Amino acid sequence: MARMPPPASSLLWRSLRAYQIYGANTDVGKTIITTILCKAAHKLWPGERTAYLKPVSTGPADAADDRCRHIRRFAPDIATKTLFQYDLASIPPDETILAEISRYAAHQAHYGPGWLFVETAGGVHSPSPAGSTQADLYMSLRLPVILVGDSKLGGISQTVSAFESLKIRGYDVETVLLFREATYGNHSYLADYFGQRHDIPVRTVPEPPKLLEDAVSDAAALSRYYDDCSGSAEVQETLSHLDARHEDRISRLESMSAAASEKIWYPFTQQKHLTPEKIVIIDSARGDYFQTFNSQGTATSDAASSNALLQSSFDGSASWWTQGLGHGNPSLTLAAAYAAGRYGHVMFAEAIHEPALAVAETLLAGLKNPRLKRVFFSDNGSTAVEVAVKMALRASRLRYGWGPGDALGVLGLQGSYHGDTIGAMDCSEPSVYNEKVEWYEGKGFWLEYPTVEYSQGVWTVKIPDGMRDLHAGPSNVAYPHLSSIFDVESRESRGEGRFYEHFIRTTLERFAVQGRKFGALIIEPVVLGAGGMLLVDPLFQRTLVKIVRQSAHVFGNTAPGTNSVADDRTWTGLPVIFDEVFTGLYRLGRFSAASFLGVEPEISVHAKVLTGGLVPLSVTAASESIFQAFASDDKSDALLHGHSYTAHPVGCQVALESLKEMQKMEARGDWDWARTAYQRAETESYQDLSAPDHTREGLAWSVWSPELVSWVGGLPTRFVGGVWALGTVLAIRLISSDGSTGYKGSAARAVHAALLQGRVNADSDRSSEPQWNVHSRVLGNTLYLMAGQKTTQETVKGVENLLREVLENTSNRT
Amino acid sequence: MARMPPPASSLLWRSLRAYQIYGANTDVGKTIITTILCKAAHKLWPGERTAYLKPVSTGPADAADDRCRHIRRFAPDIATKTLFQYDLASIPPDETILAEISRYAAHQAHYGPGWLFVETAGGVHSPSPAGSTQADLYMSLRLPVILVGDSKLGGISQTVSAFESLKIRGYDVETVLLFREATYGNHSYLADYFGQRHDIPVRTVPEPPKLLEDAVSDAAALSRYYDDCSGSAEVQETLSHLDARHEDRISRLESMSAAASEKIWYPFTQQKHLTPEKIVIIDSARGDYFQTFNSQGTATSDAASSNALLQSSFDGSASWWTQGLGHGNPSLTLAAAYAAGRYGHVMFAEAIHEPALAVAETLLAGLKNPRLKRVFFSDNGSTAVEVAVKMALRASRLRYGWGPGDALGVLGLQGSYHGDTIGAMDCSEPSVYNEKVEWYEGKGFWLEYPTVEYSQGVWTVKIPDGMRDLHAGPSNVAYPHLSSIFDVESRESRGEGRFYEHFIRTTLERFAVQGRKFGALIIEPVVLGAGGMLLVDPLFQRTLVKIVRQSAHVFGNTAPGTNSVADDRTWTGLPVIFDEVFTGLYRLGRFSAASFLGVEPEISVHAKVLTGGLVPLSVTAASESIFQAFASDDKSDALLHGHSYTAHPVGCQVALESLKEMQKMEARGDWDWARTAYQRAETESYQDLSAPDHTREGLAWSVWSPELVSWVGGLPTRFVGGVWALGTVLAIRLISSDGSTGYKGSAARAVHAALLQGRVNADSDRSSEPQWNVHSRVLGNTLYLMAGQKTTQETVKGVENLLREVLENTSNRT
Repeated sequence: MARMPPPASSLLWRSLRAYQIYGANTDVGKTIITTILCKAAHKLWPGERTAYLKPVSTGPADAADDRCRHIRRFAPDIATKTLFQYDLASIPPDETILAEISRYAAHQAHYGPGWLFVETAGGVHSPSPAGSTQADLYMSLRLPVILVGDSKLGGISQTVSAFESLKIRGYDVETVLLFREATYGNHSYLADYFGQRHDIPVRTVPEPPKLLEDAVSDAAALSRYYDDCSGSAEVQETLSHLDARHEDRISRLESMSAAASEKIWYPFTQQKHLTPEKIVIIDSARGDYFQTFNSQGTATSDAASSNALLQSSFDGSASWWTQGLGHGNPSLTLAAAYAAGRYGHVMFAEAIHEPALAVAETLLAGLKNPRLKRVFFSDNGSTAVEVAVKMALRASRLRYGWGPGDALGVLGLQGSYHGDTIGAMDCSEPSVYNEKVEWYEGKGFWLEYPTVEYSQGVWTVKIPDGMRDLHAGPSNVAYPHLSSIFDVESRESRGEGRFYEHFIRTTLERFAVQGRKFGALIIEPVVLGAGGMLLVDPLFQRTLVKIVRQSAHVFGNTAPGTNSVADDRTWTGLPVIFDEVFTGLYRLGRFSAASFLGVEPEISVHAKVLTGGLVPLSVTAASESIFQAFASDDKSDALLHGHSYTAHPVGCQVALESLKEMQKMEARGDWDWARTAYQRAETESYQDLSAPDHTREGLAWSVWSPELVSWVGGLPTRFVGGVWALGTVLAIRLISSDGSTGYKGSAARAVHAALLQGRVNADSDRSSEPQWNVHSRVLGNTLYLMAGQKTTQETVKGVENLLREVLENTSNRT
Repeated sequence: MARMPPPASSLLWRSLRAYQIYGANTDVGKTIITTILCKAAHKLWPGERTAYLKPVSTGPADAADDRCRHIRRFAPDIATKTLFQYDLASIPPDETILAEISRYAAHQAHYGPGWLFVETAGGVHSPSPAGSTQADLYMSLRLPVILVGDSKLGGISQTVSAFESLKIRGYDVETVLLFREATYGNHSYLADYFGQRHDIPVRTVPEPPKLLEDAVSDAAALSRYYDDCSGSAEVQETLSHLDARHEDRISRLESMSAAASEKIWYPFTQQKHLTPEKIVIIDSARGDYFQTFNSQGTATSDAASSNALLQSSFDGSASWWTQGLGHGNPSLTLAAAYAAGRYGHVMFAEAIHEPALAVAETLLAGLKNPRLKRVFFSDNGSTAVEVAVKMALRASRLRYGWGPGDALGVLGLQGSYHGDTIGAMDCSEPSVYNEKVEWYEGKGFWLEYPTVEYSQGVWTVKIPDGMRDLHAGPSNVAYPHLSSIFDVESRESRGEGRFYEHFIRTTLERFAVQGRKFGALIIEPVVLGAGGMLLVDPLFQRTLVKIVRQSAHVFGNTAPGTNSVADDRTWTGLPVIFDEVFTGLYRLGRFSAASFLGVEPEISVHAKVLTGGLVPLSVTAASESIFQAFASDDKSDALLHGHSYTAHPVGCQVALESLKEMQKMEARGDWDWARTAYQRAETESYQDLSAPDHTREGLAWSVWSPELVSWVGGLPTRFVGGVWALGTVLAIRLISSDGSTGYKGSAARAVHAALLQGRVNADSDRSSEPQWNVHSRVLGNTLYLMAGQKTTQETVKGVENLLREVLENTSNRT
């Protein structure tokens, strides 16, 4: 199958000190200063190769190579190259420019020790041929920067602003160089400014000689100038500094995993077996990819080593399910920085600020749930769930008149997981996640439920063992495609939910007999995440909510008739909490996962993608009737919960930016490529299977292609148990050869390892081309991959191809 | 007493549309475009007053008023003013410039409806007379911005960078204006760029006519140019847009509290009584001050109203104890933005990134506790405490061989508070904070303890009732000053701790008899925050830790002899947790609060000031022996805790910047003014009271002056029960006239309200001068004030003066 071009990696080789030259403005002397650096590098390291690269020349075609000619003339020992001319008929896309730079730099690195100076065009934000600005275009290369300051009138401002534009994109500006100019003396202000605030050295070179009319004299003067400058102490100090910084960067990368394995206590990790070499060193991240340190690249610490030290690694867990709008997204960065500049953090109790109010409004409007009226902010999914449960329990206790001594539980699904704090843990049944936690005490009852999977050509709703004795039909029900399973209204009208109703009612009636007390129904709508990426039959969850709402007689001693409260404002039976921390906000393709079920909770919990994947923030949205349960003349009846950074402006501003951007993407149809692929596949499937004609198409779609799902689901059943894809999530249940299951299942490990290895069939010329791999997380025997909302079809295709290779190989070995 | 000048407020009046003109570069036509705007405003609103202000002229003295002359000449109906000339002999400090701008603008606002255009000097980062850059200097005024773009070669880059420098300081750029220039066509790129990304309109004016040799013709040409431009559709659209934005801004501020009271569920707030007008609307914040919306200013919605709509409000709770380095701190903003640009968020399990490793290293080094070897990251103090408790309980259970069925408690102090999640709540005894929370179940035992307060000339250690029957001496022990109480080693050597030892041992022995099981000692060192700002006798806490460590025989069934493990690596008795969430990281003047006690915990919890007061982040540092309790061949024995944004790079980078800055401040002696004031006061006190000569001076100091503490402590005891100040914290225990105590105490409310009112003796000319007030939070009868680490002596003095006025008035009324 066709291989996709790997994404552009950040550039780092031990052998090559590569620096990028940015200008604080156009016409500040970038080329002159670069020429000086080239000459000086050659003087100081005469045995090494020094190269100059101009990726895109902004001059007219006939002058395109001017800069290279200039350098060749005055620094004849330097290798020079211009990659693209700006006025070429065909405008090179950004990816092509990056790929060519990578290729050229790799080529230089291969020669052994040397220097590479890459000169940008114009100022930091001058547009590239395709329109993005220099600073955005080159971000992912993460070349350390030499900023050429502006010595002219106004140049202080230009230099500081240029620096800030680079800094907020994660560039490391290693030094500032500018002309020593007497009238304005910018260098002296800048030396203090950058020295004191950023510990960045500012050094100068004399201004170049005035242009002489006689070309020969002019060239001679310039030649003398270059000779003098390249031998000056300041320039030599600059190069020594850059040389040392290069060494420092690599040594730090080399030592980080050892330091981390000594000083970090990792979350959810058995560190006894976490040897340093297993720790992934993330140098930076951009879009869908980490840039990770390739420790094999440093197998030799030979200064001549030309192994690429950084590689692109697809963030296959979407950074623990948080990632939405891509790593290093400049819009989110600016939103965060704006709020930091405008507010810092301001205390929230009895106060309001614009980002908090705006995000609350946007979220309530976006959820389209008429019950939800209020937003409570906290810091993560776990705290937001605790808030939700505190809300629901209080409302139930007051409604049903329970006393402080009455033990209240939650009603939930088996294998649910709602977070790591004790209160959130207590909402789940005992499992590997919590049963060894000393203060864990599961409070509630957790039902079995049917799951959905694709395997061998059919989508199946699998009825669990415990439900079967109530079930007359077959234990597995087949559907032509996922959308037909998600067409819950049609299925309900066809009576498919009646068995679920019966099962749920029977279960609930038992509680009434046992006298058990419940204060909330809490479920993760559609998908149980940490529980193993289980896709639950949406009709079951829908039915569960409905029956619970009809069952006030089971849950409390209300007078007859109060069961009949059935408007969409007041809760009945139990307050319903949807934990959409993982499943909401477009993770499954829709703003709210509740919309898949067609029922509306009283309390909705959101986090993770809420900030587009940048900083922690969570919300618990609630109905007015839940809110009113806390109203009283006694202050201590209030919801006494509130972390110090509640509704921190940075998080709120980023969330606002993220939600609006994702809503725009939906409105613009940015995911139509994925949606239509599924609709097409569904239409085709009608021809194969006689699907009921009232099934609506396109209810369920994924960025992971229907072809992939079909292919994976067709792998031998001894290897793949089932697969599903929805929204940005792909989950593959593998079969463990040793029979291990659950959290300790081992089947996915081989696939995980092969994805991390990257391409499985190494070509002989592999070392010269950029490598990439896929960083994934497994949940027992389930391997999942998760894209962001900005992940392109091309990227998905590339990952799918690698995944196919890996599964094919692994499957054959099994 | 002398009044301090109030801080510069943000500028907003209904009557005055005030805009600040920033240039993307020097020489981009700021004055020309401002002249056009002035003329156009006068044309469109002929009955209103349009004014032009040049705060600082950069020209030479004789040309200083050039710009004003230019405007007077070509827009004769405009009021103009230059405040300062750059080359004046005496350089005006930034505060003076801001104060003069405020005065001038207030003056204009007073005239009734009108416009004010404030032109900055040079580019956005051109230095002000005192050296700070324009964008930093004017930040706190928060005037909305007209950015004059650069139409020259390279101008796209300059305009975008200038915009970013403004944006990351919280400026609202409302429009971009630039010359319509054909060769480079910057305006068309910029119109797309700002329109698509930031929804900011970009409009143009024609280039000014070329300079003519004949002055008369030149003036005539320029005059025609101004006439044409000021009547152009683009300029009129710009002004209409700015007019609408002004209205929108005010309407939004007016409606925010009503919207918030409908849509926000507030933390720790009984909303039944939270009427909209009580909600503080925070427009922005800078340094120690919020800028809050003065709703009284809008009592009249008359467009002519010249009431100031924003006022400075000292952030007296340090934004719920988080604030360290000041609101809107550009260094923290840049740190946050750098990490956002470099990484976004990247998943942390089994991975490492530079900011996480660096902050772990910095923290471990800074704590100077040889026991602490590992850092676990989480999101807030509450989650970090849950992590700490999970750590300690596991270690104890394994050490003492308890089974899963054994109920383990914590040992703590009465009135402690460790956070709002259930697990953290369970670490505290029943109290108003938790007793109504359905799943709360206090797990442990909480001891009484002696507290420290100053009143009527003496510092007193107050022995609580429950300890007295064991105590032979007087119930209160007097000390000459706070440092003598903090000299725990001397006090210990004098035998002052023996009674505590006896009390603690007696308490612990009871548990052995009762068979109660404990898994941790958890205390807030030095100060109990949420429990009521109680200063605990440090000798008591020190003794408690020591005795617990000697009491393995009480806590577990260890073989004889294992008690003797006493190195500083292995824990004995119980793992000791210090919850320094509030008290650590310089809140009390030192990196670690543990250093006041001279004992080292196994587990140390930090949050709040950790990020300097910007974003949520917390750490739980632990000893290696605690860490090893989780090592096993079984993955499920690991610490299965980890929020999605664990160690998020933004938080880590900001924390790194904050910790380093605070360490630098300490090393530089930035707080010496406070420290020496206390040393001086202590030396003087020796002369009054015969203090033991071995008492060391300067152990305890505060930014709140010893004079203030002495004065407050001298107020009538029917009004003030006691006071203390340490580090940045001042706590005043007031006496409630109705006998109410604890969380529901009402005594502090009157003082709180008067501080919020601001100046109590209104001058008749008050409306014309900027007002300011103090926003504080109370804990029952205790009023506390908290400064940041960057708060200056002058600011503290101003707040102290207002506090004295308020206390004097309130005291007289009591």
